Order: sequence, then C-alpha cells, then structure tokens
Amino acid sequence: MRKGKSMDMEKRAVNAIRILAADAVQKANSGHPGMPLGAAPMAYELWARHMSHNPANPRWANRDRFVLSAGHGSALLYSLLHLFGYGLTKEDLMQFRQMDSPAPGHPEYGHTAGVEATTGPLGAGMGMAVGMAMAEAHLAEIFNRPDFPVVDHYTYVLGGDGCMMEGISSEAFSLAGTLGLDKLIVFYDSNQITIEGSTGGVFDENVEMRMQAFGFQTLTVEDGNDPAAIGAAIRAAKADRTRPSFITVKTKIGYGCPAKEGKASSHGEPLGAENVTALRQSLGWESGEAFDVPEDIYAHYRSLAERGAKEEEVWNQMFARYCEAYPQLKELWDRYHDRTAAKKLWEDEEFWSCEDKPQATRTLSHKMLNRIADLLPNLIGGSADLGSSNKTIMNGAGDFGRGSYAGRNLHFGIRELAMAAIANGLALHGGLRPYVATFFVFSDYMKPMARLAALMNLPVVYVLTHDSIGVGEDGPTHEPVEQLAMLRSLPNFHVFRPADGRETAAAWYYAANSETAPVALVLTRQNVPSVPGTSREALRGGYVLKDCVGRTPELILMATGSELSLAVEAASQMEAKGTAVRVVSMPCLEVFAQQTKEYQESVLPKAVRRRIAVEAASDFGWWKYVGLDGACVTMPGFGASAPAGELFEKYGFSVENVVRTAEELLKV
Amino acid sequence: MRKGKSMDMEKRAVNAIRILAADAVQKANSGHPGMPLGAAPMAYELWARHMSHNPANPRWANRDRFVLSAGHGSALLYSLLHLFGYGLTKEDLMQFRQMDSPAPGHPEYGHTAGVEATTGPLGAGMGMAVGMAMAEAHLAEIFNRPDFPVVDHYTYVLGGDGCMMEGISSEAFSLAGTLGLDKLIVFYDSNQITIEGSTGGVFDENVEMRMQAFGFQTLTVEDGNDPAAIGAAIRAAKADRTRPSFITVKTKIGYGCPAKEGKASSHGEPLGAENVTALRQSLGWESGEAFDVPEDIYAHYRSLAERGAKEEEVWNQMFARYCEAYPQLKELWDRYHDRTAAKKLWEDEEFWSCEDKPQATRTLSHKMLNRIADLLPNLIGGSADLGSSNKTIMNGAGDFGRGSYAGRNLHFGIRELAMAAIANGLALHGGLRPYVATFFVFSDYMKPMARLAALMNLPVVYVLTHDSIGVGEDGPTHEPVEQLAMLRSLPNFHVFRPADGRETAAAWYYAANSETAPVALVLTRQNVPSVPGTSREALRGGYVLKDCVGRTPELILMATGSELSLAVEAASQMEAKGTAVRVVSMPCLEVFAQQTKEYQESVLPKAVRRRIAVEAASDFGWWKYVGLDGACVTMPGFGASAPAGELFEKYGFSVENVVRTAEELLKV
Repeated sequence: MRKGKSMDMEKRAVNAIRILAADAVQKANSGHPGMPLGAAPMAYELWARHMSHNPANPRWANRDRFVLSAGHGSALLYSLLHLFGYGLTKEDLMQFRQMDSPAPGHPEYGHTAGVEATTGPLGAGMGMAVGMAMAEAHLAEIFNRPDFPVVDHYTYVLGGDGCMMEGISSEAFSLAGTLGLDKLIVFYDSNQITIEGSTGGVFDENVEMRMQAFGFQTLTVEDGNDPAAIGAAIRAAKADRTRPSFITVKTKIGYGCPAKEGKASSHGEPLGAENVTALRQSLGWESGEAFDVPEDIYAHYRSLAERGAKEEEVWNQMFARYCEAYPQLKELWDRYHDRTAAKKLWEDEEFWSCEDKPQATRTLSHKMLNRIADLLPNLIGGSADLGSSNKTIMNGAGDFGRGSYAGRNLHFGIRELAMAAIANGLALHGGLRPYVATFFVFSDYMKPMARLAALMNLPVVYVLTHDSIGVGEDGPTHEPVEQLAMLRSLPNFHVFRPADGRETAAAWYYAANSETAPVALVLTRQNVPSVPGTSREALRGGYVLKDCVGRTPELILMATGSELSLAVEAASQMEAKGTAVRVVSMPCLEVFAQQTKEYQESVLPKAVRRRIAVEAASDFGWWKYVGLDGACVTMPGFGASAPAGELFEKYGFSVENVVRTAEELLKV
Repeated sequence: MRKGKSMDMEKRAVNAIRILAADAVQKANSGHPGMPLGAAPMAYELWARHMSHNPANPRWANRDRFVLSAGHGSALLYSLLHLFGYGLTKEDLMQFRQMDSPAPGHPEYGHTAGVEATTGPLGAGMGMAVGMAMAEAHLAEIFNRPDFPVVDHYTYVLGGDGCMMEGISSEAFSLAGTLGLDKLIVFYDSNQITIEGSTGGVFDENVEMRMQAFGFQTLTVEDGNDPAAIGAAIRAAKADRTRPSFITVKTKIGYGCPAKEGKASSHGEPLGAENVTALRQSLGWESGEAFDVPEDIYAHYRSLAERGAKEEEVWNQMFARYCEAYPQLKELWDRYHDRTAAKKLWEDEEFWSCEDKPQATRTLSHKMLNRIADLLPNLIGGSADLGSSNKTIMNGAGDFGRGSYAGRNLHFGIRELAMAAIANGLALHGGLRPYVATFFVFSDYMKPMARLAALMNLPVVYVLTHDSIGVGEDGPTHEPVEQLAMLRSLPNFHVFRPADGRETAAAWYYAANSETAPVALVLTRQNVPSVPGTSREALRGGYVLKDCVGRTPELILMATGSELSLAVEAASQMEAKGTAVRVVSMPCLEVFAQQTKEYQESVLPKAVRRRIAVEAASDFGWWKYVGLDGACVTMPGFGASAPAGELFEKYGFSVENVVRTAEELLKV
C-alpha cells in the first residue's frame, strides 16, 4: 500500500470520480452508478500513472488507447474526461443522459472527445480493443525504425462479468493470444454481480484459466482499492513482451455506498439522494454540494494532464526528426492517413475495365481489391477462414501473424463476430482502411458489430460472397434470403449488390472512398454475364440500364446482381412483342434513396405503376419502389439444397417467369 | 487396441461409412469428404457401442441425442443413418445434395429421420446440444421416480475446430459447466485443419484448458483410429456424474486418401474419381463399385440396430409399469407432450381481461406469461440476465440450476446467442415449450439461432422488451430501430408488437399455440394506454380498429404497439375536422399477410391510396402497405440518449406530427 500525503490526494482523486459519477446518475435519475464506484481506483491508477495520453489533444496518434467495454459505466469515463481536462465540463456532467448532451447514456465515439469507441453492447469493446492492438502492431512494424518508435502504445480495455460471458470476448481473445499481442492489456472488473444478481450459479467458470488457455498472462489484484497492487499488475503486464495480459481486479459493485455495496440494485439505477449522501459520508468526501470538487483535486489532475502533454511533445519532437531522417516514410505515413486516396481510382482505366466473359462477381471483386491494395498501402483485411472462397486475399501483401505483423492479409479464423469488432477497432485506431469477409449468410453473426460500425460512422468494408440460392448444394443454412433486408434496414449502412464487372468496380470505388459509412459488397458465388449498359452510374444506387426509346414505359423491371441479366432478357422478349419496358439496375437502394427527388423520379416515374422487382432474396423492403400495383419475383421463403441452376428455375428466377409475371401485370 | 475377428468387422464397418461418404460427395460432385473420413471411427464407436438409439423409431422419447455440430460433415451422418437402417436408402445417398433429396447438403431437422437438429452454421450444434441436455436434466427431475428412470439419456455432440472457434460454444459451454450437465458429452474432432489451412497461427489456444476452465472433464484420444481408446473415453465421460465431458479426438482430415489426407483441400470439395479409387485401395476396401457395401457389413449393422430396438422395448415396458404405478405422472407426461394445451386460453376470461390503466406491455406480458405458466407445466424459459427488466420470471416456478434442475426459470447469463441456441435445443428435445428474453436491440446477437429456429419450424418464443426509443436515456446502442425489419424479413418467423393488454394477450395466445413457427413478442419499456377497440382480432395480424362509419376512408393510418394510441388520437382530431380516417392496428405483419386476399382488401382497400404508417422504427418493410402514394412516420436513423418523452417528440411521434403528415398527404 502506498502511504502519506500523495496517497491522500490519490484517494481523494479517486473519490472525486466516484462522487461525480454518483451525482451525474442521481441528477439524470437514470444510469449505472455501481460500476464506477467499484472501478474508480483502477481507472484512476491507469489514467494517472501508466497511460500515455494528452487530454489537450485526444487525437494524438501515439496515445495509449482506452476502451470502456462495460459501456454502461459511462459515468466513470465522463468523470475521468472531466477531471483530466478533455473538455467535458461540469455542466456537461450535469446534463448526463439528456438531449444533445456530450455525456450520453453510453459512450459514443465521435460525439465526445476522448471516447475511443462506442460501447454498451457487452463484449464489443473487448473485440474492438483487439482490433486496435492489431493496428498498433501492424503500423509499428511498418513505420518504426531504430530509435524511432513512432508507433508504440498500449491498448487498454476495461470490462466486467458481462463482457466475459459474451462469446465475442472468447473469439477475440483466442485470436489475440494466438497473435501474441503483448501491447493489449485487459482489465476485468470482477465484482461477480450482474443484473439478475450474483454470478454464482450462472457464471462459475475459472475466467483466469480460460484466459491462460487463450495465451494471456493473467494477473490478479485481490483488492480493487489497492492502487499499488493495481500499478504492480500494470507494470507486470507491460513487462511481458510475448503475450497480452489480463488483469483481474476484484471489486465491489457500488463501493462506498453502504446500502447498495455488493448488490445488483446498484448496477442500473440511481443510488437515491439519501444513499448519495451516505456515500459522501462513507468516503469522507469533503463537500456536500453536488458536483463540487475541491480545487486542489482539480490542480492535481491538471498536473497529471501536463505530464501527458509533455509526453506528446517528446513524441512530436521525435516524429519531426523521424520525418527528416526518413522522408519516404513520412510520405508513406501521409498516404496511410489520407482518407481520400482512393479517389484516384476514377482515372484508373484498368480498374474499370473488365472482360466480357461470364465471371462471378466475387472473382471480379478480387481483381479490384488487388488494384485498390496496390493504390492504398493501408488497406488491410481478410476473412473468417474463407479467404479462398471470398476471394479476398491481397497478392503479395503477406500474412499478418505472430512475429509478422507487417502482413496485410488477416486471418480471423471462424470468428465472424469478433472479426467485425476487430474491423471496427482497426478503423477506430486510425491510419488503416479495413475490410472483412465471410459468406453472406453469416453476416447474421456480424450484425451487432456492423451496427456499431454504422453508429460510429466507420467506413468498414464487408465482402459478402455466395449471395443467394446460387450457393446451391450447401442448402438453406448457407443460402441468404433475408440478409439483404437485414443490412439494408440498418441506418447509415450501404449495401451494394453489383450485377457484373463494371458495377463491381463501382461498388468497390464507393466502398474504398466511403468516409462515414460502412459498405457491404454482396457478391455471387456463380458466374454471371456482363450486362450491356452497366456503368459508373451504379454509383447513384439505381439507374436506367435499358430503356424504351421515345416511349413512356408501360412497365419497369428493377433488379440487382445476378438477376439483372434476367430482367434485361425478359425486357428484350417483351419489347419484341411490342411492350415498352424499362430496366432499372438498383445495385444500392440506400444510395438511390439519397439522390434528389428529381433524379429518383427520372428513373422511376411515379406515373408508371406497373413495376416488378427481381431479386433472389426476400421481397422485404422492395415494395417501397414496387408499390401497391407492382409485383415481386423474389424468394418466397428459405432455399433448398440442389444444384444452383435448378434452384433458380424452381423459385421462378427464369426469363420465362419474369415475362409471365409482367404479362399478368399488364393485363390488370 | 481391440483384436481379432470382431475388430476386422469393425474396421470394415468404419470403412463402409468412409466409402459411402466419399462416394456420395463424388457423385454429387459437391460436398465435404474430409471430415467423414477422419471422424468415422469415433462416430461408429459411439453409435455402435455406446449410444442408446433405435433406428426403427427415431422419435423414441428416451433415445440418446446425437447432434452433428460440424454440419458440413453431413455425409458422415447420412452414411450412419443408412447403415443403421434409419430409412435412408442407398438411392437417397446417390441423390446427396440433389433437389428434394432426403440427404441435403447440411443436415435438416424434420426433413430426414434421425437428424436431431439442423446444423451448418458452426458452433450452433454445440449450443443446441446444451439445450437438449438441459431439457433432459429438467424432465428427469420432474418425471423420474425410484426404479423408474423414464428420462435418462445422454446428449452427444460432435464438432470440429470451427465449432470451437465460434463464440457460441464458449457461451454455451461456460453455462453447461456451471450447471454441471453431466449427461452432455462433446466430441472435438481435432484435425487442426480449416478451409484456410492449418489452424496454427490462427487458433493456438489450449482448447482442453479452456474446457477445464468451463468446468468440463477433458479426455484426449491421441489416435482417432483407435476405437478402444475412443470407447474408454466415452466410458470415462459417462462415469463422471458431476461434470459434462469433452473428448478431444485427434484425427486426420481426409484420412485414407493419400493425396488429400491432412490437407485443407479435402475439406470442402470432392476427392476426385482417382482419389476415391486410391482411398478404396488404401483402406483395403473390397469393392470397386460405387456405393457397394458387402452384405455381411449390412448384417452387422442390422444386429446393432436390433440391440437398439431391444433397448427401447425394455424402456417401453418400464414406461408402461411407470404409467400404472404413477397415473398422475402419466397424465402430467401427456400434458407435457400436448402441443395444443394452450388452446384452452381462449376461454380463460382472466387471461384476456386487463385493467384500463396505462401499463408497459412488458408488464402486461408478465401477467399473461404467468397465466400460461399455470396452464402449461412444460413452459420453461428465462432471460439473458434481464429477467427483472424483461418481466419474464414465472412466479413460484423455481430456478433451474446445478442441483435444482426442476426449476423452470432459466438464467442464461449475458449470453444471448447461446441462449437462442439452447432454446432451440429445448424445443428439439421434445416435451417442453421454451421462451427466452432480452432487450429487443440485442436480438441482433440472437439472429443466427433465431434463423435456425425458423428453418426448423420450432415454436420458440422470444420476449423482446425495451422496443424503441422508449428506452430513452440508454441511447442509440440500446434503442432498436431496424430490428423489427430484421425479424419481419426472416421467413417463417412471426413478430408481434402489441399495443396494449388485449393485444398482448393475443400475442401470447398466438405464441403459446404456435406449432411450427417461432414468435417474437416486441414489448415496451414504458407505459402505454389501453386503446379502445383493440381485441382478439389482433390474431389476424392486422384489423380495422376505428373506422369512419358509413364513409369510404380518405386516409388510412396504420400503427403498431406504442404508436397505435397516437394514430387513434390523430384520427379523432382529423375526424373532428371532417376527414374520414380509418385506423388499422397491425400487430403482426406476417400473420396479416397470411390472411385471405379478401380480408386484406377489407382492411386495406386498394382504392384508398392515402396511407400512413406510424411506428417508432425504420420504415423498412412498411411500404408494402403504404404504397407509392403514402407516407411513413418512422425513425429516420439511429436514436439518441435522452428522456423517452423528449425523444418521441424529437423524432415526430406526436399527434401533431401525424396530423400534419396526414394533412400534407390529403393536399396531394
């Protein structure tokens, strides 16, 4: 145990965190006070004495990262950000969980300075922290030179029992241990209380043993109020240069609040005014006024922040010397941090050119991916064990692995959810443009983390192949039906289902240039023909592919991906019989919806009510453009196991059936 | 090692499995031969010498369950089903992966006799097996009496590296270990090969140590071709009466095929005709003809099947004596196995009655859940740590836990995906009607297993509370927006979002009586008023709640859940100004879509084009009923953190805004 005057100040500084958190929750009359009360000492010890960060510049490239995976403990984080001087004011804390407050219910990346990731869904922060640690390892390998460790920081993550129960943490930590990510340090706030009560009987596993099995060093702090023990554990974690570390800190939820300590009732509701008073007394807090923190405590935090500012200053000087010594690396650094570099693809003839022979869009995607990989050195990604099927391997870019962190091809193993979280972490870290891949049907596993990407405005790219009953023999468990609807309905998420090479190029162009939205590329397993008329217009989301010249269309056929050629052929047959048909390609419904009303009207004139959507997926979502008078040639339910060609016939994806459907519509 | 004549037969019997699997994949020119070749000995040893099953009656209640979590190895399972005489013919094997074949690409429950669960998405079988073992433990506690172990069987599950990498297996096994499910025996087919190649560098964790940490006994078979060692491990697994067991069996993928053995290339593609020939030679197989199995091997399998038939016969006799000795338990048994018992609720006045005061639909749901729990002794379920929030605790029904398996309240911990898989397992086992619960936004985590429930026609009930921005202060990570669209788009899945007590009763009535489809109940956190006019008509999915008597409506307002009262109030205000407005309540879009065309037309006459949908969620999917001339009062994107009332105002869920939207529409 530390002693003396400095300890007094530390204790008071820790209690300031607790009091502010309790006050914020109490004032909001909503929130989670229990975790901040228990975890304040470890958070303080880390932020004050071990973490390299400069509150004056939350975007300093080489700062240590801190992720609060237990996002419900946001009041802990906001108290830290306030006290360390990140710009969050006392008034902001008073507005905790109120409209437009910079202190929302759960931490939101991009909304509050110093928040490294949006968290709340448990376990997510664990996965994202692994991604950040992978980013650090990769960039360090690329950029560091003797005496110039320009990328050299830790990633800390703090979570609780819930984070450890969620499967995502097992996936992510199994990979982190395998990769030997020694700069990753996990704090496990072990208070053995969750909403339903004690974890006993629900979560009796040996967590430390599991983490050892994953390849982590495990350290245990028996008393969460012992800063010296916490500090020693952090030093031991840093000293191990071969493994990530897992620090179990035994705490009491609701610490210091006599009526609530150790109880589930302290987890997710305000302590109550009387209990906040009792908390003040039990902690020996010197002020009875809400949100009141003595000036000497603020001064103490300011001095800590100044140390952080100096650390950045030292780094800035080193980085300046580095840029002089290695001008090419400086140039490369700038390329890594240029989010608009892919705009150059617009002029790249080879990128847009493609042979006319039938090819799978996943195969076309592979060509484009590699072209982009040449242009963007910071493109990094891979698949959940399906690289050869998803066609997502960057040629000659090396494999990322233990001892070979410079490789850009990632191998996630069969861990889709962690993969998606790691992609978020790679993007959050800065300097990298990540993509991930799996079979489209398994986007189901990724959904919770894709949602966080959308919420955080992260331009993660998802390469999702085997996009329909075109999967064939593997059958309904592997055939996506409703996944297009699932992803299209996600706000701020763009789904491209290109029809051929030109549209696949457009989709990749869009994805590689996205700055604030994740993008999914939904690609075929099977070969599809090149469709005459496809073009970069695909970037508008929907466009007239083939029209009835000089006439108002009697019918509009809309289609995407592998069904576009069907629609074109059906239109040709109907035109031969004298029907005026327009074919609209709709590779991205979300982008089309962002176009001007005028453009949308020019593509889909409201007056034309006979409309048919053709897509080998659920009709869900299509009726927005089909209307009450149209029809859908779509999947009626789950698919089946059979050769793909037979399945397309069985479910009506034939020119004949599209024509028949159209003719019935024209009779009405 | 076993020796002599019987060993020869065993070896040949094992090789028959291998040859049939290789031939089936080869003939289909599609499939996964590697796993069956490696795992055939353990599967044979288990099915032939340890598993209690009667091929003549795949539905025998007390059979041991076998789940092939590594579902891509379906050819292994089909070979077993064929050889043991489950009714799968040689011709069926020849139709492997062909249209309408009983031998589809991945095993499909309900499609092929003897298949206990649909598998393919890796790890899913692990979770479902835990559910089956929980069902067995529960039913044994309820029904067994001294000398009458009428429920007394094992649950076996076989998976590979992929199943162990997926987070779902960690979630499920952590719970299984905590619960001490000693009748659960897991086979880990450890061949260290996945699609991208060796697991080295991607999956270097110590799997056995992880399983020990979860509370499993771990056993290792060094040579997957040593039946004696496999048998000894199974016996050791059965002998441990306190813990589940995990048997690592080290195998070679593609065993016996010289060119493919130990290689990823044997995983997911046919071996090739030459390699199948080489396989025959290397195994010393006596016939060169595809699918040809010598008669003495069939005879051997027949004798094994006869042993199984005798086992059931013994059980049948015991069960008959049990029914005589315990007539009340016999009656109870019948109630557990009566899937139509909840029909009685139709006459239950108390179930349908509800006070008129404002209440949260989750609170109303709690009352109905408990009424159903009284009626259905086999209702079992719980929440992923949110029982008190989801209001899903059955009063007086006890807690299911280690040593108290008779409890009907399940506590899943913070493990949503495993929870959903376990629910599938509970339903698959037979005898139980399971429900699970979490916050609606976290249905994202459950999606992959909800999909399997839909595919398997399992009437699992999902109680999903906190269903909109009504969540309030917890903010966008906890506020569902697109989850309604996600679940509504899932085939064979029914989503009810009731508006008040009567509709909640209807939703529960529907859920408790569902026989072939999973049902989600989407419920509010906040109080909602009782809406005049709501009724059991909700069972039709959509119905006219309030109409403009004697006039054709100028406008139709459609709404669900907490927004229905808004629509009613808006209609009243417009009517007062002379506009003819109809209000349609649409608690379940999927059920409405199943009504006759005539009924649908009577509720939503095609001639009425001014239509507005009001729902505090994404508009995605609503346009099917809104059409090109309507409008949606829905969420434009993610929510925010603030008091719920302010959020409803901010996003336009006010009577004023609905009226304004309607008036604009009426101007057109």
